[in-house]
Amino acid sequence: MSKIADVAARAGVSKATASRALSGRGYVSNDTRSRVVAAAQELSYVAHSSATSLATGRTQTVGVVMPPVDRWFFSELLSGIQESLFALDYDLSLYGVPEGSHTREHLFENVLSRRRFDGIIAVGIQPSAHELERLRDTGRPLVSVGPYSEGSSAVSIDDAAAARIATEHLIELGHTSIAFVGGTTDAAALSFGDERRIDGYLAALGTAGLADQARVAGAAPTLSDGYAAAVSLLGDRRHRPTAIVGVCDEAAIGAVIAARRLGIAVPTELSVVGIDDHEHAELFALTTIHQSPREQGHDAVRLLRQRMDDPEAPLEQVAAASALVVRGSTAAPR
Amino acid sequence: MSKIADVAARAGVSKATASRALSGRGYVSNDTRSRVVAAAQELSYVAHSSATSLATGRTQTVGVVMPPVDRWFFSELLSGIQESLFALDYDLSLYGVPEGSHTREHLFENVLSRRRFDGIIAVGIQPSAHELERLRDTGRPLVSVGPYSEGSSAVSIDDAAAARIATEHLIELGHTSIAFVGGTTDAAALSFGDERRIDGYLAALGTAGLADQARVAGAAPTLSDGYAAAVSLLGDRRHRPTAIVGVCDEAAIGAVIAARRLGIAVPTELSVVGIDDHEHAELFALTTIHQSPREQGHDAVRLLRQRMDDPEAPLEQVAAASALVVRGSTAAPR
Repeated sequence: MSKIADVAARAGVSKATASRALSGRGYVSNDTRSRVVAAAQELSYVAHSSATSLATGRTQTVGVVMPPVDRWFFSELLSGIQESLFALDYDLSLYGVPEGSHTREHLFENVLSRRRFDGIIAVGIQPSAHELERLRDTGRPLVSVGPYSEGSSAVSIDDAAAARIATEHLIELGHTSIAFVGGTTDAAALSFGDERRIDGYLAALGTAGLADQARVAGAAPTLSDGYAAAVSLLGDRRHRPTAIVGVCDEAAIGAVIAARRLGIAVPTELSVVGIDDHEHAELFALTTIHQSPREQGHDAVRLLRQRMDDPEAPLEQVAAASALVVRGSTAAPR
Repeated sequence: MSKIADVAARAGVSKATASRALSGRGYVSNDTRSRVVAAAQELSYVAHSSATSLATGRTQTVGVVMPPVDRWFFSELLSGIQESLFALDYDLSLYGVPEGSHTREHLFENVLSRRRFDGIIAVGIQPSAHELERLRDTGRPLVSVGPYSEGSSAVSIDDAAAARIATEHLIELGHTSIAFVGGTTDAAALSFGDERRIDGYLAALGTAGLADQARVAGAAPTLSDGYAAAVSLLGDRRHRPTAIVGVCDEAAIGAVIAARRLGIAVPTELSVVGIDDHEHAELFALTTIHQSPREQGHDAVRLLRQRMDDPEAPLEQVAAASALVVRGSTAAPR
């Protein structure tokens, strides 16, 4: 393996300049960078990141702990995190939170503590107090994305406000029979974010004097669960709600599909509102609350970088704004 | 930072045993492992992976290069890769292929060559000959997932066969006017996999003497593009096909939604078949060709591990089987 000195000599620059050009840190003109990169390629030079890491104590790596990326929200968020880390020349070590308590425990007890990062971003994983302690034990700056923040900088939306705004939109249209699709009646399994969204829905009903009209149909935040919950809500014609708030757009789109299958016209017979502004929301003409997980990913990296640069920097909580986007799935009741 | 010797002494085991227990490599009884882990936690011991890496030349890290995970196929595949790497105690360094040729070039020219991995999995990125060379220049075993394989072990489905089987199903039902939704007429932008699927569609039509009936409506492999392409195909009643093959399930589901919007009954007035068996295929009663990207992820790690253990092992190509799954979206034409 060639040394940085060989690369510098071949490119006709100082070792410091060659190092800057190859590391991407510090200023080097494009022309110089090209020359150094060409020299490095000719010499098959590969920066020995482990040696660099031992010398500087930095790994140029950020650990990202998150659930499976099979939902729009998480894949968008991961894209945002990737974009920002790539621009900063950081590597991304991805740790999916595995299913099953034993493997999850292995991740927190053994894997994360053995790995070296400059920082950690924990996404929507709802760590237990014990897991949070393990994350802090790594001694690295931590930023969480999602509705918890104790002891870490955090990025989230105001889940309660999002659901409240969605519900108020329906109340203002004149609806009084408004059901909520999402969450679960099993308190132990209820995610904190879903719980806050149910709170927001109940708060809006309460303020409007409709507390006794509240109906929550449990559903995971997926198309198929939203579909199934809506089918059971809409099946009984006499007690059919005139409007549905979905815990997220996937659940709301599931409700729209269920209504179509049952021959119930949206929005004339049923209004549906979601939360997210999912990439498919427009296709289904879904009224929803807009949020941008990609920007939340950018924000998470920004907050993490502040703390990597200055571990004493104060914790910061970013609550991303959410706004109502009215499309064709909501209207006044008949 | 404590030394492994301190941990071993506290746990009352040999250094070798403590090392095995903490690395997860080699046999240690559960009881011993618990004792060592507890001792390590008490001493805040963290294995110094950079030092380990310098000593062994191994990083216990696999680089995964892939497009944004905003499609079901890629998120499932990533989950499969994660599961297998987690079980083998390997870290996953994720490199999204950034949009824009300049940043993509930066990834291949500078980033990948500077990082150290034990192996690389390249997913659906269709590298140019030059990029492939850069990947090989890293000197690490390479496994590709998707329809290219020159110089690497590879996992894929037979794209042409998948589209041929889907088209033959429609021909056997009696359809003669069968359109294809997906791919693009811009040869330069056409992905190799999509091209092979169009080939399979054309081959099936050719064998049935229907070559002059071929119609390809260009669309990206997404719900919204499939929807738009289907709307333009179905808009003209006189030239409306009686059946559509989607380049993937997302495009096919877009066509199903388009048909519903236009008041065209599926399957009595229009049959639709996809490729993938996407998690939502069942909800839309979509007839499709089943494939399991999650298993392809497991296969990719298995092939990579063979080559990491023995760099001289022969290249291997796994073509995952695909099978027709008949649901409610296909029927004989009226």
